Amino acid sequence: MNATSKNIVAVTHRVPAEERWDMNKHKGGVIWFTGLPGSGKSTLALELEHRLFQQGKQAYVLDGDNIRLGLSSDLGFSPKDRHENIRRIGEVAGLFAKAGFIVITAFISPYQADRNLARRCAGDMFKEVFIDTPVKICEERDPKGHYQMARAGKIPEFTGVSAPYEAPSSPELRIMTPDREIADCVRELEEFVSANFNI
Amino acid sequence: MNATSKNIVAVTHRVPAEERWDMNKHKGGVIWFTGLPGSGKSTLALELEHRLFQQGKQAYVLDGDNIRLGLSSDLGFSPKDRHENIRRIGEVAGLFAKAGFIVITAFISPYQADRNLARRCAGDMFKEVFIDTPVKICEERDPKGHYQMARAGKIPEFTGVSAPYEAPSSPELRIMTPDREIADCVRELEEFVSANFNI
Repeated sequence: MNATSKNIVAVTHRVPAEERWDMNKHKGGVIWFTGLPGSGKSTLALELEHRLFQQGKQAYVLDGDNIRLGLSSDLGFSPKDRHENIRRIGEVAGLFAKAGFIVITAFISPYQADRNLARRCAGDMFKEVFIDTPVKICEERDPKGHYQMARAGKIPEFTGVSAPYEAPSSPELRIMTPDREIADCVRELEEFVSANFNI
Repeated sequence: MNATSKNIVAVTHRVPAEERWDMNKHKGGVIWFTGLPGSGKSTLALELEHRLFQQGKQAYVLDGDNIRLGLSSDLGFSPKDRHENIRRIGEVAGLFAKAGFIVITAFISPYQADRNLARRCAGDMFKEVFIDTPVKICEERDPKGHYQMARAGKIPEFTGVSAPYEAPSSPELRIMTPDREIADCVRELEEFVSANFNI
Protein backbone atom coordinates (compact mmCIF):
# COMPACT_ATOMS: atom_id res chain seq x y z
CA MET A 1 0.00 0.00 0.00
CA ASN A 2 1.23 3.45 -0.90
CA ALA A 3 2.46 5.57 2.00
CA THR A 4 0.03 8.31 1.03
CA SER A 5 -2.89 5.94 1.34
CA LYS A 6 -2.59 4.62 4.87
CA ASN A 7 -5.73 4.53 6.99
CA ILE A 8 -7.64 3.33 3.92
CA VAL A 9 -9.56 0.08 3.79
CA ALA A 10 -11.02 -1.30 0.56
CA VAL A 11 -14.80 -1.71 0.74
CA THR A 12 -16.61 -4.71 -0.64
CA HIS A 13 -19.12 -4.22 -3.41
CA ARG A 14 -22.51 -5.79 -2.82
CA VAL A 15 -22.80 -6.86 -6.44
CA PRO A 16 -20.21 -9.51 -7.36
CA ALA A 17 -18.80 -9.37 -10.90
CA GLU A 18 -20.34 -12.75 -11.67
CA GLU A 19 -23.84 -11.39 -11.04
CA ARG A 20 -23.14 -8.58 -13.49
CA TRP A 21 -21.95 -11.15 -16.03
CA ASP A 22 -25.21 -13.06 -15.59
CA MET A 23 -27.28 -9.93 -16.12
CA ASN A 24 -25.27 -8.83 -19.18
CA LYS A 25 -24.98 -12.39 -20.54
CA HIS A 26 -21.24 -11.96 -21.09
CA LYS A 27 -18.10 -11.57 -18.99
CA GLY A 28 -16.45 -8.24 -18.31
CA GLY A 29 -12.81 -7.57 -19.08
CA VAL A 30 -10.22 -5.54 -20.92
CA ILE A 31 -9.28 -5.84 -24.59
CA TRP A 32 -6.02 -3.94 -24.64
CA PHE A 33 -4.99 -2.80 -28.12
CA THR A 34 -1.37 -1.85 -28.62
CA GLY A 35 0.38 -0.71 -31.78
CA LEU A 36 2.16 2.11 -33.56
CA PRO A 37 0.52 5.46 -34.36
CA GLY A 38 -1.58 4.94 -37.49
CA SER A 39 -1.70 1.16 -37.04
CA GLY A 40 -5.51 1.21 -36.91
CA LYS A 41 -6.17 0.89 -33.17
CA SER A 42 -8.90 3.53 -32.85
CA THR A 43 -10.60 2.60 -36.11
CA LEU A 44 -10.80 -1.06 -35.17
CA ALA A 45 -11.74 -0.32 -31.55
CA LEU A 46 -14.68 1.89 -32.53
CA GLU A 47 -15.89 -0.59 -35.15
CA LEU A 48 -15.67 -3.44 -32.64
CA GLU A 49 -17.51 -1.40 -29.99
CA HIS A 50 -20.31 -0.74 -32.46
CA ARG A 51 -20.60 -4.40 -33.46
CA LEU A 52 -20.62 -5.61 -29.84
CA PHE A 53 -23.25 -3.02 -28.94
CA GLN A 54 -25.40 -4.25 -31.81
CA GLN A 55 -25.15 -7.72 -30.27
CA GLY A 56 -26.54 -6.31 -27.00
CA LYS A 57 -23.22 -6.35 -25.18
CA GLN A 58 -21.97 -3.68 -22.80
CA ALA A 59 -18.87 -2.41 -24.61
CA TYR A 60 -16.97 0.86 -24.42
CA VAL A 61 -13.83 2.30 -25.98
CA LEU A 62 -11.23 4.15 -23.97
CA ASP A 63 -9.29 6.00 -26.62
CA GLY A 64 -5.89 7.63 -26.44
CA ASP A 65 -7.15 10.84 -27.92
CA ASN A 66 -10.18 11.15 -25.63
CA ILE A 67 -8.30 10.22 -22.45
CA ARG A 68 -5.49 12.63 -23.30
CA LEU A 69 -8.03 15.46 -23.41
CA GLY A 70 -9.52 14.52 -20.04
CA LEU A 71 -8.09 12.21 -17.40
CA SER A 72 -4.50 12.64 -18.63
CA SER A 73 -4.68 16.23 -19.86
CA ASP A 74 -1.94 17.10 -17.35
CA LEU A 75 0.52 14.67 -18.92
CA GLY A 76 2.96 14.95 -21.81
CA PHE A 77 4.85 12.32 -23.80
CA SER A 78 8.06 11.79 -21.84
CA PRO A 79 8.68 8.17 -20.76
CA LYS A 80 7.59 9.11 -17.22
CA ASP A 81 4.36 10.73 -18.40
CA ARG A 82 3.60 7.89 -20.81
CA HIS A 83 4.03 5.48 -17.92
CA GLU A 84 1.66 7.47 -15.70
CA ASN A 85 -0.84 7.76 -18.55
CA ILE A 86 -0.91 4.00 -19.08
CA ARG A 87 -1.06 3.38 -15.32
CA ARG A 88 -4.19 5.51 -15.02
CA ILE A 89 -5.81 3.92 -18.06
CA GLY A 90 -5.09 0.46 -16.66
CA GLU A 91 -6.81 1.42 -13.42
CA VAL A 92 -9.82 2.89 -15.22
CA ALA A 93 -10.09 -0.09 -17.57
CA GLY A 94 -9.99 -2.34 -14.50
CA LEU A 95 -12.92 -0.42 -12.99
CA PHE A 96 -14.94 -0.77 -16.20
CA ALA A 97 -14.17 -4.50 -16.26
CA LYS A 98 -15.29 -4.89 -12.64
CA ALA A 99 -18.48 -3.01 -13.56
CA GLY A 100 -19.18 -5.74 -16.14
CA PHE A 101 -18.02 -4.00 -19.32
CA ILE A 102 -15.99 -5.26 -22.22
CA VAL A 103 -13.71 -2.24 -22.34
CA ILE A 104 -11.57 -1.78 -25.43
CA THR A 105 -8.52 0.40 -24.90
CA ALA A 106 -6.82 1.95 -27.93
CA PHE A 107 -3.46 3.36 -26.86
CA ILE A 108 0.00 3.09 -28.36
CA SER A 109 1.20 1.85 -24.92
CA PRO A 110 4.74 1.36 -26.23
CA TYR A 111 6.36 -0.24 -23.18
CA GLN A 112 5.83 -3.92 -22.27
CA ALA A 113 6.39 -3.19 -18.58
CA ASP A 114 3.51 -0.69 -18.58
CA ARG A 115 1.21 -3.14 -20.37
CA ASN A 116 2.13 -5.80 -17.82
CA LEU A 117 1.18 -3.39 -15.07
CA ALA A 118 -2.16 -2.69 -16.74
CA ARG A 119 -2.76 -6.44 -16.97
CA ARG A 120 -2.74 -6.66 -13.20
CA CYS A 121 -5.89 -4.52 -13.06
CA ALA A 122 -7.99 -7.18 -14.78
CA GLY A 123 -6.07 -10.44 -14.27
CA ASP A 124 -7.34 -13.31 -16.43
CA MET A 125 -9.81 -10.99 -18.13
CA PHE A 126 -7.04 -8.82 -19.60
CA LYS A 127 -6.43 -9.60 -23.28
CA GLU A 128 -3.50 -7.97 -25.05
CA VAL A 129 -4.18 -7.46 -28.75
CA PHE A 130 -1.29 -6.41 -30.98
CA ILE A 131 -2.47 -4.32 -33.93
CA ASP A 132 0.45 -5.37 -36.06
CA THR A 133 1.06 -2.83 -38.79
CA PRO A 134 4.67 -2.19 -39.87
CA VAL A 135 5.92 1.34 -39.34
CA LYS A 136 6.42 1.74 -43.11
CA ILE A 137 2.71 1.23 -43.75
CA CYS A 138 1.65 3.37 -40.76
CA GLU A 139 3.80 6.15 -42.17
CA GLU A 140 2.28 5.79 -45.64
CA ARG A 141 -1.22 6.00 -44.13
CA ASP A 142 -0.29 8.83 -41.74
CA PRO A 143 -4.00 9.62 -41.11
CA LYS A 144 -3.28 12.67 -38.96
CA GLY A 145 -0.12 13.84 -40.72
CA HIS A 146 1.83 13.19 -37.53
CA TYR A 147 4.61 11.07 -39.05
CA GLN A 148 5.36 13.86 -41.50
CA MET A 149 5.49 16.37 -38.65
CA ALA A 150 7.64 14.02 -36.55
CA ARG A 151 10.11 13.51 -39.41
CA ALA A 152 10.29 17.29 -39.75
CA GLY A 153 11.10 17.53 -36.04
CA LYS A 154 7.83 19.26 -35.24
CA ILE A 155 6.58 16.55 -32.84
CA PRO A 156 9.17 15.35 -30.32
CA GLU A 157 9.20 11.84 -28.83
CA PHE A 158 6.93 10.40 -31.50
CA THR A 159 6.62 6.61 -31.26
CA GLY A 160 8.10 4.86 -34.28
CA VAL A 161 10.17 7.87 -35.27
CA SER A 162 11.89 9.35 -32.24
CA ALA A 163 10.53 7.23 -29.37
CA PRO A 164 10.69 3.44 -29.00
CA TYR A 165 7.91 0.89 -29.47
CA GLU A 166 8.24 -2.50 -27.80
CA ALA A 167 6.11 -5.01 -29.73
CA PRO A 168 4.36 -7.55 -27.48
CA SER A 169 6.15 -10.89 -27.37
CA SER A 170 3.11 -13.02 -26.53
CA PRO A 171 -0.14 -11.13 -27.05
CA GLU A 172 -3.44 -13.02 -26.70
CA LEU A 173 -4.24 -11.95 -30.27
CA ARG A 174 -2.30 -10.46 -33.17
CA ILE A 175 -4.20 -8.60 -35.88
CA MET A 176 -2.27 -8.16 -39.11
CA THR A 177 -3.82 -5.22 -40.92
CA PRO A 178 -1.83 -4.82 -44.20
CA ASP A 179 -3.79 -5.77 -47.32
CA ARG A 180 -6.94 -6.51 -45.33
CA GLU A 181 -10.38 -4.91 -45.19
CA ILE A 182 -11.39 -3.33 -41.87
CA ALA A 183 -14.49 -5.55 -41.80
CA ASP A 184 -12.32 -8.66 -42.02
CA CYS A 185 -10.17 -7.57 -39.07
CA VAL A 186 -13.30 -6.76 -37.06
CA ARG A 187 -14.73 -10.21 -37.77
CA GLU A 188 -11.58 -11.76 -36.36
CA LEU A 189 -11.91 -9.58 -33.26
CA GLU A 190 -15.57 -10.51 -32.82
CA GLU A 191 -14.69 -14.20 -32.92
CA PHE A 192 -12.02 -13.56 -30.30
CA VAL A 193 -14.58 -11.82 -28.07
CA SER A 194 -17.06 -14.67 -28.45
CA ALA A 195 -14.38 -17.21 -27.55
CA ASN A 196 -13.24 -15.29 -24.48
CA PHE A 197 -16.18 -13.29 -23.12
CA ASN A 198 -19.21 -15.53 -23.60
CA ILE A 199 -20.45 -17.13 -20.39
CA MET B 1 -6.65 22.52 -24.69
CA ASN B 2 -3.69 21.71 -22.53
CA ALA B 3 -0.30 22.51 -24.02
CA THR B 4 0.82 18.92 -23.45
CA SER B 5 -2.05 17.64 -25.56
CA LYS B 6 -1.59 19.44 -28.84
CA ASN B 7 -1.89 17.36 -32.01
CA ILE B 8 -4.80 15.51 -30.41
CA VAL B 9 -8.26 15.34 -31.93
CA ALA B 10 -11.25 13.85 -30.12
CA VAL B 11 -12.73 10.86 -31.92
CA THR B 12 -16.44 10.30 -32.27
CA HIS B 13 -17.98 7.21 -30.77
CA ARG B 14 -20.15 5.17 -33.08
CA VAL B 15 -22.67 4.46 -30.33
CA PRO B 16 -24.44 7.63 -29.16
CA ALA B 17 -25.32 7.84 -25.46
CA GLU B 18 -29.02 7.85 -26.33
CA GLU B 19 -28.74 4.43 -27.95
CA ARG B 20 -27.13 3.11 -24.80
CA TRP B 21 -29.97 4.61 -22.77
CA ASP B 22 -32.49 2.81 -24.97
CA MET B 23 -30.70 -0.52 -24.55
CA ASN B 24 -30.38 -0.09 -20.76
CA LYS B 25 -33.88 1.40 -20.37
CA HIS B 26 -32.51 4.25 -18.27
CA LYS B 27 -30.30 7.30 -18.71
CA GLY B 28 -26.65 7.37 -17.73
CA GLY B 29 -25.22 9.96 -15.40
CA VAL B 30 -23.39 10.77 -12.20
CA ILE B 31 -24.85 10.73 -8.70
CA TRP B 32 -22.18 12.62 -6.82
CA PHE B 33 -22.32 12.08 -3.05
CA THR B 34 -20.53 14.60 -0.88
CA GLY B 35 -20.30 14.75 2.90
CA LEU B 36 -18.04 14.50 5.92
CA PRO B 37 -16.06 11.37 6.83
CA GLY B 38 -18.47 8.99 8.58
CA SER B 39 -21.55 10.74 7.13
CA GLY B 40 -22.70 7.49 5.48
CA LYS B 41 -21.64 8.06 1.86
CA SER B 42 -20.15 4.64 1.14
CA THR B 43 -22.83 2.74 3.04
CA LEU B 44 -25.64 4.49 1.16
CA ALA B 45 -23.83 4.30 -2.19
CA LEU B 46 -23.29 0.54 -1.95
CA GLU B 47 -26.89 -0.06 -0.81
CA LEU B 48 -28.20 2.10 -3.65
CA GLU B 49 -25.97 0.30 -6.19
CA HIS B 50 -27.35 -3.04 -5.00
CA ARG B 51 -30.96 -1.88 -5.22
CA LEU B 52 -30.51 -0.40 -8.71
CA PHE B 53 -28.80 -3.58 -9.89
CA GLN B 54 -31.74 -5.62 -8.59
CA GLN B 55 -33.96 -3.41 -10.74
CA GLY B 56 -31.87 -4.38 -13.78
CA LYS B 57 -30.07 -1.04 -14.02
CA GLN B 58 -26.40 -0.57 -14.92
CA ALA B 59 -25.06 1.01 -11.72
CA TYR B 60 -21.58 1.19 -10.24
CA VAL B 61 -19.98 2.81 -7.21
CA LEU B 62 -16.73 4.72 -7.41
CA ASP B 63 -15.62 4.83 -3.82
CA GLY B 64 -13.04 7.03 -2.16
CA ASP B 65 -11.35 4.10 -0.52
CA ASN B 66 -11.12 1.99 -3.69
CA ILE B 67 -9.96 4.85 -5.93
CA ARG B 68 -7.37 5.90 -3.39
CA LEU B 69 -5.83 2.42 -3.58
CA GLY B 70 -5.73 2.48 -7.40
CA LEU B 71 -6.14 5.45 -9.72
CA SER B 72 -5.11 7.97 -7.05
CA SER B 73 -2.62 5.87 -5.11
CA ASP B 74 0.05 8.46 -5.93
CA LEU B 75 -1.87 11.26 -4.20
CA GLY B 76 -2.04 12.42 -0.59
CA PHE B 77 -4.47 14.70 1.22
CA SER B 78 -3.07 18.18 0.69
CA PRO B 79 -5.49 20.65 -0.94
CA LYS B 80 -3.58 20.25 -4.24
CA ASP B 81 -3.74 16.45 -4.13
CA ARG B 82 -7.40 16.47 -3.08
CA HIS B 83 -8.13 18.70 -6.05
CA GLU B 84 -6.29 16.35 -8.45
CA ASN B 85 -8.03 13.32 -6.90
CA ILE B 86 -11.46 14.84 -7.48
CA ARG B 87 -10.49 16.01 -10.97
CA ARG B 88 -9.57 12.45 -11.97
CA ILE B 89 -12.70 10.99 -10.40
CA GLY B 90 -14.85 13.53 -12.23
CA GLU B 91 -13.26 12.49 -15.53
CA VAL B 92 -13.73 8.78 -14.80
CA ALA B 93 -17.32 9.28 -13.64
CA GLY B 94 -17.95 11.20 -16.88
CA LEU B 95 -16.64 8.24 -18.90
CA PHE B 96 -18.93 5.84 -17.02
CA ALA B 97 -21.87 8.16 -17.61
CA LYS B 98 -21.07 8.34 -21.35
CA ALA B 99 -20.90 4.53 -21.35
CA GLY B 100 -24.51 4.50 -20.09
CA PHE B 101 -23.95 3.84 -16.39
CA ILE B 102 -25.56 5.38 -13.37
CA VAL B 103 -22.31 5.92 -11.53
CA ILE B 104 -22.49 6.73 -7.83
CA THR B 105 -19.41 8.47 -6.46
CA ALA B 106 -18.79 8.41 -2.72
CA PHE B 107 -16.07 10.91 -1.91
CA ILE B 108 -15.77 13.59 0.74
CA SER B 109 -15.02 16.06 -2.08
CA PRO B 110 -14.81 18.96 0.38
CA TYR B 111 -14.40 21.88 -2.04
CA GLN B 112 -17.30 23.34 -4.02
CA ALA B 113 -14.98 24.45 -6.82
CA ASP B 114 -13.80 20.87 -7.34
CA ARG B 115 -17.37 19.55 -7.36
CA ASN B 116 -18.29 22.21 -9.90
CA LEU B 117 -15.41 21.02 -12.07
CA ALA B 118 -16.61 17.42 -11.81
CA ARG B 119 -20.08 18.57 -12.83
CA ARG B 120 -18.72 19.70 -16.19
CA CYS B 121 -17.86 16.07 -17.03
CA ALA B 122 -21.54 15.04 -17.09
CA GLY B 123 -23.48 18.28 -17.62
CA ASP B 124 -27.23 17.94 -16.99
CA MET B 125 -26.76 14.35 -15.92
CA PHE B 126 -24.61 15.32 -12.93
CA LYS B 127 -26.58 15.21 -9.68
CA GLU B 128 -24.96 16.48 -6.50
CA VAL B 129 -26.28 14.71 -3.41
CA PHE B 130 -25.36 16.11 -0.01
CA ILE B 131 -25.19 13.38 2.63
CA ASP B 132 -25.99 15.78 5.43
CA THR B 133 -24.76 14.43 8.74
CA PRO B 134 -23.48 16.93 11.33
CA VAL B 135 -19.85 16.53 12.33
CA LYS B 136 -20.90 15.79 15.93
CA ILE B 137 -22.81 12.69 14.82
CA CYS B 138 -20.10 11.60 12.34
CA GLU B 139 -17.62 11.79 15.19
CA GLU B 140 -19.86 9.75 17.51
CA ARG B 141 -20.20 7.07 14.79
CA ASP B 142 -16.49 7.20 13.86
CA PRO B 143 -16.76 3.86 12.00
CA LYS B 144 -13.05 3.63 11.24
CA GLY B 145 -11.73 5.34 14.37
CA HIS B 146 -10.35 8.15 12.22
CA TYR B 147 -11.90 11.07 14.12
CA GLN B 148 -10.27 9.81 17.31
CA MET B 149 -6.92 9.54 15.55
CA ALA B 150 -7.34 12.97 13.97
CA ARG B 151 -8.15 14.56 17.34
CA ALA B 152 -5.01 12.91 18.72
CA GLY B 153 -3.01 14.48 15.87
CA LYS B 154 -2.27 11.11 14.28
CA ILE B 155 -4.00 11.92 10.95
CA PRO B 156 -3.15 15.34 9.50
CA GLU B 157 -5.51 17.33 7.27
CA PHE B 158 -8.60 15.36 8.29
CA THR B 159 -11.82 16.86 6.95
CA GLY B 160 -14.08 18.13 9.73
CA VAL B 161 -11.23 18.28 12.25
CA SER B 162 -8.15 19.88 10.70
CA ALA B 163 -9.24 20.42 7.06
CA PRO B 164 -12.25 22.38 5.80
CA TYR B 165 -15.53 21.03 4.40
CA GLU B 166 -17.62 23.29 2.19
CA ALA B 167 -21.22 22.11 2.31
CA PRO B 168 -23.05 22.37 -1.02
CA SER B 169 -25.24 25.43 -1.27
CA SER B 170 -27.70 24.04 -3.81
CA PRO B 171 -27.38 20.27 -4.21
CA GLU B 172 -29.91 18.41 -6.36
CA LEU B 173 -30.75 16.32 -3.28
CA ARG B 174 -30.03 16.52 0.42
CA ILE B 175 -30.19 13.34 2.50
CA MET B 176 -30.49 13.96 6.23
CA THR B 177 -29.26 10.81 7.95
CA PRO B 178 -29.61 11.47 11.72
CA ASP B 179 -32.35 9.40 13.41
CA ARG B 180 -33.18 7.57 10.20
CA GLU B 181 -32.86 3.97 9.07
CA ILE B 182 -30.50 3.28 6.17
CA ALA B 183 -33.37 1.65 4.25
CA ASP B 184 -35.40 4.84 4.55
CA CYS B 185 -32.56 6.95 3.12
CA VAL B 186 -32.06 4.45 0.29
CA ARG B 187 -35.77 4.61 -0.58
CA GLU B 188 -35.46 8.38 -0.94
CA LEU B 189 -32.45 7.92 -3.20
CA GLU B 190 -34.26 5.33 -5.33
CA GLU B 191 -37.14 7.73 -5.84
CA PHE B 192 -34.65 10.41 -6.88
CA VAL B 193 -33.09 8.04 -9.41
CA SER B 194 -36.49 7.12 -10.84
CA ALA B 195 -37.40 10.78 -11.19
CA ASN B 196 -34.12 11.70 -12.92
CA PHE B 197 -32.83 8.64 -14.78
CA ASN B 198 -35.91 6.95 -16.17
CA ILE B 199 -36.41 7.46 -19.90
